[in-house]
Amino acid sequence: MSTSSNTAPSAGPRPPEFATWMKQGNNITQQFLSFGRRPGPIVLSGGLPAPELYPISDVQEAARDALEKHGSAALGYGAVEGLFDLREAIAHRLSTDRLSLAPENVLITTGSLQAVELIGKALIDPGDAILAEYPTYLGALDAWLPRLPRYAELPHEAPWPEAKFAYVVPNFSNPTGAVLKRKAREALLSRSAESGIWLVEDDPYGELRYEGGVQPSLLEMSAVPGTAIYEGSVVHLGTLSKTIAPGLRVGWAVCAPDMIRALAQAKQGSDLSTSTFCQAVALELIRKDADRRHVPTLIDAYRERRDALCAAAQEHLADLFEWSVPEGGMFVWMTARQPGLDTYALLPFALEAGVSFVPGSVFDSRGLVSPSLRLNFTANPPDILQEGVRRLSRAAREFASRQAAAE
Amino acid sequence: MSTSSNTAPSAGPRPPEFATWMKQGNNITQQFLSFGRRPGPIVLSGGLPAPELYPISDVQEAARDALEKHGSAALGYGAVEGLFDLREAIAHRLSTDRLSLAPENVLITTGSLQAVELIGKALIDPGDAILAEYPTYLGALDAWLPRLPRYAELPHEAPWPEAKFAYVVPNFSNPTGAVLKRKAREALLSRSAESGIWLVEDDPYGELRYEGGVQPSLLEMSAVPGTAIYEGSVVHLGTLSKTIAPGLRVGWAVCAPDMIRALAQAKQGSDLSTSTFCQAVALELIRKDADRRHVPTLIDAYRERRDALCAAAQEHLADLFEWSVPEGGMFVWMTARQPGLDTYALLPFALEAGVSFVPGSVFDSRGLVSPSLRLNFTANPPDILQEGVRRLSRAAREFASRQAAAE
Repeated sequence: MSTSSNTAPSAGPRPPEFATWMKQGNNITQQFLSFGRRPGPIVLSGGLPAPELYPISDVQEAARDALEKHGSAALGYGAVEGLFDLREAIAHRLSTDRLSLAPENVLITTGSLQAVELIGKALIDPGDAILAEYPTYLGALDAWLPRLPRYAELPHEAPWPEAKFAYVVPNFSNPTGAVLKRKAREALLSRSAESGIWLVEDDPYGELRYEGGVQPSLLEMSAVPGTAIYEGSVVHLGTLSKTIAPGLRVGWAVCAPDMIRALAQAKQGSDLSTSTFCQAVALELIRKDADRRHVPTLIDAYRERRDALCAAAQEHLADLFEWSVPEGGMFVWMTARQPGLDTYALLPFALEAGVSFVPGSVFDSRGLVSPSLRLNFTANPPDILQEGVRRLSRAAREFASRQAAAE
Repeated sequence: MSTSSNTAPSAGPRPPEFATWMKQGNNITQQFLSFGRRPGPIVLSGGLPAPELYPISDVQEAARDALEKHGSAALGYGAVEGLFDLREAIAHRLSTDRLSLAPENVLITTGSLQAVELIGKALIDPGDAILAEYPTYLGALDAWLPRLPRYAELPHEAPWPEAKFAYVVPNFSNPTGAVLKRKAREALLSRSAESGIWLVEDDPYGELRYEGGVQPSLLEMSAVPGTAIYEGSVVHLGTLSKTIAPGLRVGWAVCAPDMIRALAQAKQGSDLSTSTFCQAVALELIRKDADRRHVPTLIDAYRERRDALCAAAQEHLADLFEWSVPEGGMFVWMTARQPGLDTYALLPFALEAGVSFVPGSVFDSRGLVSPSLRLNFTANPPDILQEGVRRLSRAAREFASRQAAAE
């Protein structure tokens, strides 16, 4: 890189190479995030909440209170681990009869994706193994890529191979929307105890349940009743992004104090601390239970949207795809009835028809889920979702006829 | 790690090892950050602004305006690169007759430390070289440690050895307070152009100048006049942490679009985007020039504090240490007149006497600056600074007499 401009021929040596992992990276999340801002196609590819449902006046009130009550403490550098009062509020809220949490069990992070990243940063040397479900959350794969890990599929029944940690999204998984049943949770915990590795429970969607019974968290199930501080092997991740708004970038990791210290050491070199201003706003929101009071509104709206999308799919897509109606979360995972269909190749047809989705292959580098795709149902109202499904149906038929013609 | 509590003996296998870099890590920043919150000693170890000078009412107004004007756009996921209007505002503000910047030249980061970290993440594979001044900013060393780089001292005159980038804090360096003069800047730029590597200009303190003339930035000096978009090799870092408040965690990198894209790819897996709420608040502040209007207040207060600390040091420490009065920034760098004095060994005596400082050795792992120490003068009013210096003087004399007795 010389000091020449792009209008003049470059003089001098070429700039140095980027790090190895950058060659494997993709910017699909980046594309989808900026995509969400543009007018144009109906965006069923996002993982976004409904912006019109953000509780803006609650945030306004909390921001005012944060500065009035906490003053300069809401604007300074905070402790790396987070504001003590917020750590305490989260510990208090997640404690149950069985699970006793202290502030020392809580680390505040810049969105729960940062917690995901810090776990990789603290544990993974190049080639170390991570056990993950297939398909799994794309953001987690992105976050760990710079550590150059190996992946192995999480065996739910058999003993676990050597690894640094196992990663699960037990409630309404991204991308599949699946829920781990009680028996599967128990099996995970005994495999985890046998192997002695960390078990990461990423739970951004747990509160967004539209039907069916609540499952206890792996964190709670792994607790030893009667102890004052949690010392188990589960690292539980939560966030305000789905119940209040992602723009606050406030999430948390809840785990044994040893792991909190390691994550804090990793966080120190990432951003020193999460915005104390956003933390103070989050504290005021949580103290008033604003997030939990907001959940029923979200549930009503999202259930209606899920039902609208699934009903339209039943009408327009049932001959081409199959799916389960998810009990919660943000996504419907559809799999083509024709096994050879590659949804990555379908995507340009969908964009041409004015609708976007996420092809299954981006969630699983082995390509085993390439006939699947992920549709989001939370970010658009019912009529838009229905129109999106109609466009997807037209695109899929156009794609199939082109494929048939090419054969 | 089993599911046992800390009150019961641990059963099952031991938890897996942390990543290699964690063994080399230190939590000194973490200690100092949480230290700053506790009552007790006079804290001259921090790198903190004066909290009583945070422009709270400006932030209050900006937070209100951000939500009123931007609504849900201030609460959603934003583009990885940052809010377009904020990128544009920063590009506009930093442009000069010689330097023309576009929004594509700007990435918003979660504090400028995140920009420092992302540069390492995007460029460094284990063993790759970084050229740095000695001593250098501790936070940068922390941020790069997980990438396992090599360090080489930046040669200001001779040709540069092979490396991925060079890192400088040209204005009121942390820890030494030194300023790069015009000639030294020109030399840096020609060495950089010859070697073709990136030149990182970290400038958090540039606005805090108490006397002396402003030097042009390396960014501006490296620009080719008449081009519409900067394509040079300087990566310039700025922040609102020193002119408004660190708790917003809003910083920026300004550089060629190629590097912006690489940094955005690295940022995607770190925190998806900087808090859009904080970005919207920052945008409102910058549009009203609230940060620049606040700078004269900071300069007046900090100059008085610097002078109070240096006058007290002249009275109580001049026989033991020497220093230059810095023209700006936050730190005075003192070096013991007795070359064998190790300020790391002095620290416990200082804490016992009720004052903290940062020993030189933490800024340079080679130990060449162990007779030096860093004092902060911005976070305490003059009378506290004076008392801190008196305590340090007593501690240094106690330390010297103990050492003499032990010989």
